[in-house]
Amino acid sequence: MSTVGVRPGPGSAEASALVDTARALADAARVAILPHFRGPRLAAENKRAGGFDPVTEADRGAERAMRDILAIRRPDDGILGEEFGPKEGLSGLTWVLDPIDGTRAFISGTPTWGVLVAVSDMSGPIFGIVDQPHIGERFEGGLGVSQLVGPRGAQPLGVMPASGLDGATLFTTFPEVGTPDEGAAFARLSRAVRLTRYGMDCYAYALLAAGQIDLVVEAGLQPYDIHAPIAVIEAAGGLVTDWRGGSAAGGGQVVAAASPALLEAALEYLAPAARQS
Amino acid sequence: MSTVGVRPGPGSAEASALVDTARALADAARVAILPHFRGPRLAAENKRAGGFDPVTEADRGAERAMRDILAIRRPDDGILGEEFGPKEGLSGLTWVLDPIDGTRAFISGTPTWGVLVAVSDMSGPIFGIVDQPHIGERFEGGLGVSQLVGPRGAQPLGVMPASGLDGATLFTTFPEVGTPDEGAAFARLSRAVRLTRYGMDCYAYALLAAGQIDLVVEAGLQPYDIHAPIAVIEAAGGLVTDWRGGSAAGGGQVVAAASPALLEAALEYLAPAARQS
Repeated sequence: MSTVGVRPGPGSAEASALVDTARALADAARVAILPHFRGPRLAAENKRAGGFDPVTEADRGAERAMRDILAIRRPDDGILGEEFGPKEGLSGLTWVLDPIDGTRAFISGTPTWGVLVAVSDMSGPIFGIVDQPHIGERFEGGLGVSQLVGPRGAQPLGVMPASGLDGATLFTTFPEVGTPDEGAAFARLSRAVRLTRYGMDCYAYALLAAGQIDLVVEAGLQPYDIHAPIAVIEAAGGLVTDWRGGSAAGGGQVVAAASPALLEAALEYLAPAARQS
Repeated sequence: MSTVGVRPGPGSAEASALVDTARALADAARVAILPHFRGPRLAAENKRAGGFDPVTEADRGAERAMRDILAIRRPDDGILGEEFGPKEGLSGLTWVLDPIDGTRAFISGTPTWGVLVAVSDMSGPIFGIVDQPHIGERFEGGLGVSQLVGPRGAQPLGVMPASGLDGATLFTTFPEVGTPDEGAAFARLSRAVRLTRYGMDCYAYALLAAGQIDLVVEAGLQPYDIHAPIAVIEAAGGLVTDWRGGSAAGGGQVVAAASPALLEAALEYLAPAARQS
């Protein structure tokens, strides 16, 4: 029997199986990645070919470990990962994996990269994990779960939106934010908010779900960059769309907001550079 | 008897007393600060007056706790702290304290702010700690000590310089880096390196001491922003100067480098905007 199109209810056996599997994947990624974090710097340099694409041993080892688990536990599900090719599934569910989101943070020793694990159906992510192995923080959302499990135990996640843009904190990873027109739109939005910060990769989405910041704006994302953050943020009461207010599950231009009002206000600034996705 | 002008040797009783005291200060700051990290967001907003200066309860509570310890353990030493006025000393030693370096990171929930503790004589810092309480990482340097104590135990610190600028990783906190001419000089340097990253505050200096990055360039620093990083980086084999190659202990324009060659190369790019300090 196929489960296509039927989302498992919170607390159901299928929901528990998905949550347990996602956690097992994130656990396996931690084990594969941490021994390589802050190691000698040559590995990443040697793997460069042309542009800057620091694919590390850790990245590939972690995705391989996660795929091995899925082959046993969820053989009928599809897989979309950063490192290896997509695997078609039969169940209608796809595991969307980015073993190290923020490879440039990783090779700099910064503890703000993350392991992204999501399970998605045709309408988008239904459960996701943003995991930071070095700190030992795991942000989870979907299927009735919304929590941070970290060094000081478990606590609920939840957005805490500023009342308007002039009180909002905005994050993005690279100050140039994509193409020049995308960067110009971001710069206009940046001038309207209280505080803009850079360099956090997926960790910024986790901070939004944790009620610490209001907006994350990025461009040029891949689907595997955003599926897990969508699940975590939506479960925490926030919103994630593209720059036209549509689904962000395809990647590209993404805006995450702690409230509908902040999303609407941000979209006005981003509209001039918004693309058909 | 005064100790003015006499640096205690590594392993001496006075060196141990200074290291122990610095650790006690950092411990006290952790206790005072952590309960406020990732708390409700209103406190920082209410304390704004004019510009953006989020002085939190945590900031003041931590400096008060550190001063209380110094009043008992080191009554003859001077104190230069961010939050309260300078205290003149009799011993020739001054404790240079920044309870939360990176208040904007702190109020955003980002785990890259730090507690900075240094003890300095007339010629500069002799021991320093860069502490990240949320992660539980403590970077120490000076008086024969050079180590990171973190979640996975203690390990030695040490720079690991790239062979040239074209292989180097450069960090700064704000993309604009001070005044327009300072920003332009930074931008020229940024184009010459392999990778530029933003937003790390004092954590960037710690990453340089840990052999993960090559250069940190900032402008507009206060002395209490840089004394502890100087001690940690110099003990790890790196260098910290102003943009003219002189002492950075006065704050202002600062460049930290993993090797003399990288420092010299960076100074050439920064020279056009270098100021008399």
